Amino acid sequence: MDRIAALRRKAFKEAKFDGYVVFNEVNLTYFTGFSGANALLIPEDGESVLFVYGTNYEMCKAQGAGLKVELVKSGENLMDKIAGQAKVFGAKHLAVDALNVEGWQALAKSVGDEKKLGCGNSFVRDLRMVKDKSEIELMRKAGELASLGVKVAYETVAPGVAEREVAAEIEYAMRKHGSDGTSFDTSVASGPNSAYPHGGCSDKKIREDDLVIVDLGARYRFYCSDVTRTLVAGKPSEKQKKLHRIVLEAYEKAFDAIEPGVKASEVDAVGRRIVEDAGYGEFFVHGLGHGVGLEIHEPPTLSRSGMETLVVGNVVTNEPGIYLVGYGGIRVEDTVLVTKAGAEKLTQGAYTLCGK
Amino acid sequence: MDRIAALRRKAFKEAKFDGYVVFNEVNLTYFTGFSGANALLIPEDGESVLFVYGTNYEMCKAQGAGLKVELVKSGENLMDKIAGQAKVFGAKHLAVDALNVEGWQALAKSVGDEKKLGCGNSFVRDLRMVKDKSEIELMRKAGELASLGVKVAYETVAPGVAEREVAAEIEYAMRKHGSDGTSFDTSVASGPNSAYPHGGCSDKKIREDDLVIVDLGARYRFYCSDVTRTLVAGKPSEKQKKLHRIVLEAYEKAFDAIEPGVKASEVDAVGRRIVEDAGYGEFFVHGLGHGVGLEIHEPPTLSRSGMETLVVGNVVTNEPGIYLVGYGGIRVEDTVLVTKAGAEKLTQGAYTLCGK
Repeated sequence: MDRIAALRRKAFKEAKFDGYVVFNEVNLTYFTGFSGANALLIPEDGESVLFVYGTNYEMCKAQGAGLKVELVKSGENLMDKIAGQAKVFGAKHLAVDALNVEGWQALAKSVGDEKKLGCGNSFVRDLRMVKDKSEIELMRKAGELASLGVKVAYETVAPGVAEREVAAEIEYAMRKHGSDGTSFDTSVASGPNSAYPHGGCSDKKIREDDLVIVDLGARYRFYCSDVTRTLVAGKPSEKQKKLHRIVLEAYEKAFDAIEPGVKASEVDAVGRRIVEDAGYGEFFVHGLGHGVGLEIHEPPTLSRSGMETLVVGNVVTNEPGIYLVGYGGIRVEDTVLVTKAGAEKLTQGAYTLCGK
Repeated sequence: MDRIAALRRKAFKEAKFDGYVVFNEVNLTYFTGFSGANALLIPEDGESVLFVYGTNYEMCKAQGAGLKVELVKSGENLMDKIAGQAKVFGAKHLAVDALNVEGWQALAKSVGDEKKLGCGNSFVRDLRMVKDKSEIELMRKAGELASLGVKVAYETVAPGVAEREVAAEIEYAMRKHGSDGTSFDTSVASGPNSAYPHGGCSDKKIREDDLVIVDLGARYRFYCSDVTRTLVAGKPSEKQKKLHRIVLEAYEKAFDAIEPGVKASEVDAVGRRIVEDAGYGEFFVHGLGHGVGLEIHEPPTLSRSGMETLVVGNVVTNEPGIYLVGYGGIRVEDTVLVTKAGAEKLTQGAYTLCGK
């Protein structure tokens, strides 16, 4: 309930709304600790109400979390129910976290006037950017599972093994050890495919001396992790080793730059400068990193346009890369927690280019 | 490009827009055949333009699909680029498929007037509801992989085995045989957990004589499948057998009712009547089924409020269930293609209640 109290401060004290409606399913999980609810009305005065359709009503009631749970019956209109309940609370100016334009128009109709609605996504976004103790615990576990995945990758990548086979082994090991699933589709991109940051994973067999980018993550009780290693199935060439050294140096320098008070764009700049100085700037085609939490991509973003200033409790990826179309790519990535002392890696694993 | 031509008919001939912008990532995959693009502008006159940020630009260019691919550079505003390109095409009244309210307001600003925008989600939704030949081929394959998952479930569910262990074996087998991942989190809900339709999957060990609902699906080249079986780890009791017979009868009668021309709500009614007549109507807490395709839940919906009339090429689930809180639940489900002759199951597997 601390999270609802924090939302109340942002939406009702700092901004001047008197009701807040959560629709986004990830935000609903953030406030309730479980999945399956359809909306949450947080009034300035009164007890929050969770709206749930029949399918998940009993489950949400059982998981409860001290919230009043209201059944949305077949044929009932969710927006009308929310508007009716808001009226009971005397709420006249509702902020919503996220609605598509049709949903927005429907809610506007239910409350009678679009002017009674406002966009309040930033309140939850700001809260979610700073992980609390219980979130960090879950993210640590998600990180450990991903680190196991890295170990399996090093044991599995070899000439003649299909990309998909590597992904299957990684996912199986993580699942057996407690993962609730992957936090995104495991990518095992070999040879020319590795030149695409999201190169995916196919039935293609890994060839000797191929660059192989393995990008993976585990989900643990809704929280994500994200880690990448680049391997060579065989004996790395001088060019491969050189590219890997540049990326690894960018990774290390950027990691050293992560601390509370530093601007997100500055961390990106530190990593990018290394790649640029080595002459590969134009081939580092994405930002240095992104926030991770309940979603695999969330704020703050470490990029040239990253406006946030890092604070204790942010969790971000550090993932410089070089991508040479037609040749292959290199990326090294860990999930990193911003701490008082600077930064702590939530994912671990070897950094060597050599696979089996 | 047939799909773009079909969209053009709906948006420009039947409705009177002169430009269409696709933002939703699933819709983008529908029109391009790949993932990673950020927006697609389809003009009434001229060649469609795909907008892609740097990360996936080279990959989208390589996958191409005959579309003009436009790079959105770091610092550039996507909405401004789209508005500028629309102006070049002379488009004055744009429909968009899906935008959250902030995105809508940003695009309205870029085109200069909110009145130039309209909601056009229904055009794509209507197209996606009717699967074409190539989609059916992929969904058949996704269905085969899920059927393999069912086989593994029957081989794995046993007293003393953890729910998560069953999920791990199912997912591993599907992945090794070509699945790109699951189409949703595999659910293995045993004992009291099975009384919740989305009971999930935990480290809990399956106990002898527990009801176990196994709900799983594979993804194959973006397309989903969905199948459920209920098993008993041990010797089913008379009550378990009775409940299972009711659900199976509802499943069979509903399957027989699926054919072109029938109303979605009527198929739901056929299945629901069996459960109601047996005295368990109030415990069938969800609709009979939902559409499946690029997403695991999409139209048409087979429920009391399902307004669609089924046509050849719809793919829906048929999944009646009975859920007794504190006791357990039963559900049987297959993914079904509507054909000229009636209906064809895309998922297969035993229907017996007995596990190992």
